[in-house]
Amino acid sequence: MVTENMQKTFANLAIRQGINLQEGQSLIIGANVRDAAFVRMCVEEAYAAGAKKVMVDWRDELVTRTHYLKQSTETLCDIPDWIVARETYRQGEGCCFLSIKSDIPGVNKDVDPEKMQALSQASAKKMGELNRFYMTNRAQWCVISLPSTEWAKVVFPELPEEEAMERLSDLLYAVSRVREGEDALQEWAEHNATLMERAKKMNDFNFHALHFKSEQSGTDLTVGLVKDHIWSGGGSVTQSGIRFNPNIPTEEIFTMPSRTRMEGYVKASMPLDYQGGLIKGLWLKVKDGRVTEHGADEGEDRLAKLLDTDEGTRSFGEVALVPYDSPISQSGILFYKTLYDENASCHLALGRPYPKNLKGGEGMSIEELKAHDANESDQHVDFMFGTQDMQIDGLAEDGTRTPVFREGNFVF
Amino acid sequence: MVTENMQKTFANLAIRQGINLQEGQSLIIGANVRDAAFVRMCVEEAYAAGAKKVMVDWRDELVTRTHYLKQSTETLCDIPDWIVARETYRQGEGCCFLSIKSDIPGVNKDVDPEKMQALSQASAKKMGELNRFYMTNRAQWCVISLPSTEWAKVVFPELPEEEAMERLSDLLYAVSRVREGEDALQEWAEHNATLMERAKKMNDFNFHALHFKSEQSGTDLTVGLVKDHIWSGGGSVTQSGIRFNPNIPTEEIFTMPSRTRMEGYVKASMPLDYQGGLIKGLWLKVKDGRVTEHGADEGEDRLAKLLDTDEGTRSFGEVALVPYDSPISQSGILFYKTLYDENASCHLALGRPYPKNLKGGEGMSIEELKAHDANESDQHVDFMFGTQDMQIDGLAEDGTRTPVFREGNFVF
Repeated sequence: MVTENMQKTFANLAIRQGINLQEGQSLIIGANVRDAAFVRMCVEEAYAAGAKKVMVDWRDELVTRTHYLKQSTETLCDIPDWIVARETYRQGEGCCFLSIKSDIPGVNKDVDPEKMQALSQASAKKMGELNRFYMTNRAQWCVISLPSTEWAKVVFPELPEEEAMERLSDLLYAVSRVREGEDALQEWAEHNATLMERAKKMNDFNFHALHFKSEQSGTDLTVGLVKDHIWSGGGSVTQSGIRFNPNIPTEEIFTMPSRTRMEGYVKASMPLDYQGGLIKGLWLKVKDGRVTEHGADEGEDRLAKLLDTDEGTRSFGEVALVPYDSPISQSGILFYKTLYDENASCHLALGRPYPKNLKGGEGMSIEELKAHDANESDQHVDFMFGTQDMQIDGLAEDGTRTPVFREGNFVF
Repeated sequence: MVTENMQKTFANLAIRQGINLQEGQSLIIGANVRDAAFVRMCVEEAYAAGAKKVMVDWRDELVTRTHYLKQSTETLCDIPDWIVARETYRQGEGCCFLSIKSDIPGVNKDVDPEKMQALSQASAKKMGELNRFYMTNRAQWCVISLPSTEWAKVVFPELPEEEAMERLSDLLYAVSRVREGEDALQEWAEHNATLMERAKKMNDFNFHALHFKSEQSGTDLTVGLVKDHIWSGGGSVTQSGIRFNPNIPTEEIFTMPSRTRMEGYVKASMPLDYQGGLIKGLWLKVKDGRVTEHGADEGEDRLAKLLDTDEGTRSFGEVALVPYDSPISQSGILFYKTLYDENASCHLALGRPYPKNLKGGEGMSIEELKAHDANESDQHVDFMFGTQDMQIDGLAEDGTRTPVFREGNFVF
């Protein structure tokens, strides 16, 4: 059972390790209204860590859903200037950002995907460069999740509501490495070290491409990696040198795929919750780095909208390796949430890359990044394709093969 | 017991009667995160009534309290420009405003009153004319309250928590005239008509002053009324002619006192919850319209800060008449909330007047209002002084007396 003490430990972990809030720095917390008790703990902890100012952006995804359903597309897409002014002010203050997620899976499934896409595009156009602030690590940011009864019912449909909620809570805390009476910060220091070691090995190999093959799913995909790519894992570093953990939990190491060199077929191994609607059984055929054919068992219209959002949503921004024996995968639970499911499984992201995955990338303009074969988009959408029998070979430029994964796990 | 059906009726009442939302108009809702379920009903109802856009400003008063305690006064008072930009945008759109209150009484009692006063002043300075938008009825606005367990414990300290909450909920719905199976809109139409009739009588009398006298409390106060004052009650009208009910519940008729003609002694008959701290046993001596002496049994420092907030906080902006047999008064319950307690009792407000209580007032500048003997301030703080034995006489300019209240109630 998750005790109040464990909740406080989690809040402490989010502020001190996830965000690594600095003395005198300001913090923005984005949270659902249902998580008020936990948010209060985070706010207390942030001031205890020396925060100058904490701002909470509350939301209620059921109210948001009503906006999507009832506002005209024109009204929804008319984003007022003060939103830009607020973001400009906050970035100017160097605010770090804690995102606490507990949204109901599929909450927006009745909303017209065209409307959602129009909103995405309007927001990207209005916010422009402001949307790249956290992506380029100009300040620390961290995403964590909390349970909700609605989510618990999706994950454990066969259990009574209260029991489902307790099981989901237990699981989320366990995979986030928060345990009663244990030192979560120490555990995270060790875990980060393991991930950094893996990333270092992959950087030393400096592969030209990775070849993924799974009999189970039919995936057979060669993913080119950009020249001078960097594998990351076990935390990030801001441009000014502050270490932080963007995701709690995290089990992945990841890098930047080539915008033009990707070939083959990939089949998702888990459903994807995109803009509040599920896409199940997603598959893509890829040629010269771009999706040429696609399909899904459910939510194909959502997938089509996603791929057509902008010029870059048919190419890729991230490739990530997660061993099949990671604790999230071992739980055997499908969470219907990217933050967890992506840490159970190898995954790819359509859209925008992380500039830090390219040497010197954080200082480059979008044009310079593109010249280095990096993709560009306003979207970044992960989907999972790891399987128990996944084989991965690293390919040198001359075609030499080095085993990286066998039977779903690292060989080193 | 308050049923879901009654909650929906209350949400409907707030949107259709309180706000009287117009087709194509946008709405801002200010609410505590604990009231999410009710807010969702209001949002649904607002769109059903034809709202263009609904914006919810969520808050959590425990988080806000932490900000007050932990931020430096300098940080707290440094209000960013985007707050002004947001308000400017919303007023430009003609948004109406629904305020849903359920704050814990006395939640900020540990906060330094000087800090609260500094924030009030900084906010008034930064917002300027924007703060007068709703006060001058340039769009519809409405304040309602919802119960909270913390509030219920203050009102019914002797009852178990759950029972206290149920009693408070029942009471709030009853005094708001929302009953299972009854037509709340129809009830409100009749109630408004009664209040308008009383206001009309007082306008016909057109008194020069009112004399309040109570043996019970010792109050003996002559309140001058501005020339061309208007008694209001049973709803307001926007400058563009839309009727609405600014308060649910409402039992008062009220008008504008003179800034310079008020003499005597007044003793509060109920505690006042000011900026989250209680002031009990408040008394004031008044000469030439200004408070010259003051005292309180509890919270005297808060009272002193309030009186010194600005030039106008020692003079008065409102005088209101509420019969002792009003349903809220008859409940015999002290709510520790102005919205209810002011509707149980005759009251005065320190600070800013409502311009609509002066003929042509809504079109006047602050200077013009002052020239008409109206007070001006950034504050508007009601305190209750009605008693069971209250006698009120209306005074004509020549001193002729007409009975208005005997033994706490209207004589007509």
